Amino acid sequence: MKISELARETGVPVATLKYYIREELMPAGEVRSRTSAVYGPEHVERVRLVRALTEVGGLTLVTTRRVLAAISQPGLDPTEVMGTAARSLYGEGYVEVPDEGDAAAVAERLPSSRARDWVVARGWQVDLRDPAIDALDRAWAACEVADLGLDETRMARYADAAELVAAVDVGSVPPEPTAAVRQVVLGTVLVEPVLEALRRLAQQHTAVSRAH
Amino acid sequence: MKISELARETGVPVATLKYYIREELMPAGEVRSRTSAVYGPEHVERVRLVRALTEVGGLTLVTTRRVLAAISQPGLDPTEVMGTAARSLYGEGYVEVPDEGDAAAVAERLPSSRARDWVVARGWQVDLRDPAIDALDRAWAACEVADLGLDETRMARYADAAELVAAVDVGSVPPEPTAAVRQVVLGTVLVEPVLEALRRLAQQHTAVSRAH
Repeated sequence: MKISELARETGVPVATLKYYIREELMPAGEVRSRTSAVYGPEHVERVRLVRALTEVGGLTLVTTRRVLAAISQPGLDPTEVMGTAARSLYGEGYVEVPDEGDAAAVAERLPSSRARDWVVARGWQVDLRDPAIDALDRAWAACEVADLGLDETRMARYADAAELVAAVDVGSVPPEPTAAVRQVVLGTVLVEPVLEALRRLAQQHTAVSRAH
Repeated sequence: MKISELARETGVPVATLKYYIREELMPAGEVRSRTSAVYGPEHVERVRLVRALTEVGGLTLVTTRRVLAAISQPGLDPTEVMGTAARSLYGEGYVEVPDEGDAAAVAERLPSSRARDWVVARGWQVDLRDPAIDALDRAWAACEVADLGLDETRMARYADAAELVAAVDVGSVPPEPTAAVRQVVLGTVLVEPVLEALRRLAQQHTAVSRAH
């Protein structure tokens, strides 16, 4: 199909489609003549994915480009899957400390933080340099500022729920590495708004049930 | 303290503080002379809250203003609490259908959607016009576009987790209405990034545990 037809099919204006091509969010069409190129179903799929990631997932174009590059990376080692997924989403935000010695030795070199201490106490086996720990620190501090009473006990109950979610997430990752990266990355981004909406609805339901 | 001291105390530039006052995110200081005003600890607290909501919670200034107005609204009826909280966060996004008859009659007038049908089947007692249902529809559709295999079974397991989270949320709401709106609104916004970070860490932990 022509680019005008791709625009009709996806509801995305031609100018935006050309922008996606320039920004490497979508491959160019197959060139047929000096002024026209041909687009196929893989382009329709790609445009829909870009829209889903940016509009529903709230990703910036820069992160979207990194995510799309990650999910089309072939021949990954299974152990690289989670790392590639995390880096594509969160950039190179890892705390830089030498990676020598065992986990405890690495942890010793890291600045201590409430979130890092909490993760260790919880017994979660995670890379303690992961940017998610810093994100947890910032988010926890913001809750303190707002005086929400989010103490270690409530955090533990939220963590129980997070483990349930993670079990579903991890259980739906296919064995083949490229497909796995795709599932982890897209699932992390696109399931987030699902969980957010479910939480709001469950809050309503719970509040109503308790009032009766 | 003077505005320059408020800036030092909060780490927010004077120009930004003046902007907050113009945009009604923070009350002006008490005027002492033609050129100076005095600020107190309540201003420090307010500035930190605005930063938490915009930087960690990711709210726009417009939503932040609505949220701040909602949490300082006195004398609310307990039944208005959830509604006020939801409207401050999501605007007037309710589907407009006449509110006559019982819940089933209202539901009949609404456009059917996968999310709405799912919520009814789940037995959640929620306002079926709630914008969270449309948000769930959009988020679910985005997962379909990305071919994530998010079917009714997986949705039910995410909903189990959402109910756990909601039980903690609702359990920490104080009985006094103004404090309750504050807790619901700020908790909805500021706990979201906590849950997101926990999910990422729990995914890592779960993936590592299963591999061993």
